[in-house]
Amino acid sequence: MLGAGKSTFMRIERALDFLGEMDIECGIVLKPENIFYLTGFMPTSRAMLLLEGSPLLIVSQMDASLAKKTGIDIKVVKSFKRALKIRYRKVGVEKNVMSLQFYERYLKGKKVADMGFLRKMRMVKDGEEIEHIKKAAEISDAVMGEARSILGGGKTEKECASEIEFLIKTWAEPAFDVIVAVGENSAIPHHRPTKKIVDVNYPVIVDLGARVNGYHTDMTRTFFSDLTGGFGEVYRIVLEAQKAGIKECYEGNSLKNPDIEVRRVLKEYGLEKYFLHSTGHGVGLEIHEPPNIGKRAKGKFEKGMVVTIEPGVYRDFGVRIEDMVLVGKRPKVLTKSRK
Amino acid sequence: MLGAGKSTFMRIERALDFLGEMDIECGIVLKPENIFYLTGFMPTSRAMLLLEGSPLLIVSQMDASLAKKTGIDIKVVKSFKRALKIRYRKVGVEKNVMSLQFYERYLKGKKVADMGFLRKMRMVKDGEEIEHIKKAAEISDAVMGEARSILGGGKTEKECASEIEFLIKTWAEPAFDVIVAVGENSAIPHHRPTKKIVDVNYPVIVDLGARVNGYHTDMTRTFFSDLTGGFGEVYRIVLEAQKAGIKECYEGNSLKNPDIEVRRVLKEYGLEKYFLHSTGHGVGLEIHEPPNIGKRAKGKFEKGMVVTIEPGVYRDFGVRIEDMVLVGKRPKVLTKSRK
Repeated sequence: MLGAGKSTFMRIERALDFLGEMDIECGIVLKPENIFYLTGFMPTSRAMLLLEGSPLLIVSQMDASLAKKTGIDIKVVKSFKRALKIRYRKVGVEKNVMSLQFYERYLKGKKVADMGFLRKMRMVKDGEEIEHIKKAAEISDAVMGEARSILGGGKTEKECASEIEFLIKTWAEPAFDVIVAVGENSAIPHHRPTKKIVDVNYPVIVDLGARVNGYHTDMTRTFFSDLTGGFGEVYRIVLEAQKAGIKECYEGNSLKNPDIEVRRVLKEYGLEKYFLHSTGHGVGLEIHEPPNIGKRAKGKFEKGMVVTIEPGVYRDFGVRIEDMVLVGKRPKVLTKSRK
Repeated sequence: MLGAGKSTFMRIERALDFLGEMDIECGIVLKPENIFYLTGFMPTSRAMLLLEGSPLLIVSQMDASLAKKTGIDIKVVKSFKRALKIRYRKVGVEKNVMSLQFYERYLKGKKVADMGFLRKMRMVKDGEEIEHIKKAAEISDAVMGEARSILGGGKTEKECASEIEFLIKTWAEPAFDVIVAVGENSAIPHHRPTKKIVDVNYPVIVDLGARVNGYHTDMTRTFFSDLTGGFGEVYRIVLEAQKAGIKECYEGNSLKNPDIEVRRVLKEYGLEKYFLHSTGHGVGLEIHEPPNIGKRAKGKFEKGMVVTIEPGVYRDFGVRIEDMVLVGKRPKVLTKSRK
């Protein structure tokens, strides 16, 4: 974990500035990743952060010792209900996180404004965050390098996924449940590994990621022993589409453009209708986070964004190639495994 | 996964009956576990279930093939916004799940009522659910049986946790990240495994669980080679407290009573102040679900509830003993590893 540091204090300062601009005296942060982002403390139980003049972390007894390390004022409570006597008339909330129940119980009748600035802040990674992501990307590459040899030997998808996760754990934590999908299963984007035997005479999709200090990576490769048949052709088209998408990930460009370019290439070969999801997504403290890189994306790329570009074709078999890209004047691909 | 079956159709019928009693024509189910409970389909992407006269599953393209297997009408959409034109003036929602954002975007101005009956239904497990939980409990027992030998050999907490998870995966999925906590780390209830070397001359807490067909188990043992010193004494007290708690898990008894009994025993020995969390929780499609077994619990035990009883003492070292109990005329302990 980050622990409390210069960067977390700076983030809190910025958040308080944003609240000030919105003329709000108190923000209530509930999302664990947002609490971690602002304080370095990842709750393991119920917790909330009050962004006031002097920020306050409200935690249960179980998390008291962890929360103390942040250097932020903490209040250990048995009942959150009693702790949450908000005296302000207008408060900042995470509207996509706070439940109707929470609102009705604790804030009914108050004005609430969305703290959208938290999403904006988290979309653009600072130097410390990029270091964690780079480290996680290196680990993902190392594991992907071993994956090919794990896939042999008549093992099932499940067994291969377990071995890959075990390998990730020697250096980091798995960012999510590893996907190993062979043959027709590769045509299901979010396939869960089964007892099907892995045979590299059919396409095998391996989707994996590592988590370092809370920061995730996400990458996919599709393996197949024979590149001369129809599979090889689809593979080369998806790769061409991916490259076209990656090219668009630069500062100032529209967030829509990678998706437009990826679809343009796939369409050229009549494959666009087999592409079932958006082209990519932001990655950071969550495996999927803003910005979404799809048709309906709004806004522009900013320096420090980290996104995936992951076109796929899902027919009788599937091909997906996914890399993580750091946005700058030029796109920088962080995952470097052979394609 | 369950797949669509007789039990899911019966659950939908019951849910529609509850809605009818509330005079509500349409319920919107968003929580993935609730969608799974009612349909046998576990979304891997955004999805919602409309509980109307003829229930409708709204899913993204990615989940279309999975959702089709339910036998329920499905609608595959690219944009959920357009799909959600609710014509009813009053709708049922999961108030503890639905975000303020969702409410404001899709339901603003409508009357919403909480579908609390979903929590009530899920609290009481039917025969099919109990079978899955029993199977997961057997697997947890088998793994716990091996855990003791995994803890040897100078390995770190992380390495031991990885090996235990790998073992779970040979039969099931891990219900959560396995906890291995040695020495002073055992005093942190939700400790995350570190690089600390495991030494059974100090207490080692192992908290693990398996997931079978979506159903979880949760159990904890505390290992220590020497039961003659202060540790052995604390261990025996926690075990006595646990037994007293388990005894209270019978049909018709107050949900508060296990917590009262556990604390009574701990208090007798002056240890109650070191017990940092509630006595237990329901387990099922979620690792923590209603009912909460604590001071503020309301209501009575019902036949078919499955709960944990897990007293702990967290001082300079920690002791926690956790088992899963099936509620009936008498409590039935489902996890049977030696204590």
